[in-house]
Amino acid sequence: MQTTLKVEGMTCGHCEKAVKGALQELEGVEEVNVHLESGDVEVSHNGVQEDKMKEAVEEQGYDVVS
Amino acid sequence: MQTTLKVEGMTCGHCEKAVKGALQELEGVEEVNVHLESGDVEVSHNGVQEDKMKEAVEEQGYDVVS
Repeated sequence: MQTTLKVEGMTCGHCEKAVKGALQELEGVEEVNVHLESGDVEVSHNGVQEDKMKEAVEEQGYDVVS
Repeated sequence: MQTTLKVEGMTCGHCEKAVKGALQELEGVEEVNVHLESGDVEVSHNGVQEDKMKEAVEEQGYDVVS
């Protein structure tokens, strides 16, 4: 299944990498696509809780706004 | 001695870290202070060529404008 998070505060390729890396470390996450300009982060996964994903992104210093 | 570079394109803490790290790897560089908002990067060193510093920053993907 796919979840799209709206993430605020990503400004550069390093930010993209930090968010992508944190999500990919979660068990059950299959693929992560980050769209830097829109802040959309698409996560393909096998049933990972949205809270877990939100937490992983926030731990990197970014806000998940929806 | 101290050299101040004006660097464009640093947007976040990761950028700061990338620039600081690249400069600190140069032999003869003693201390690096990055001011993210102004783009000022202060380098304390023992006679490192400015071209070497410029190159190190540019290799990280940022522009040295002065």
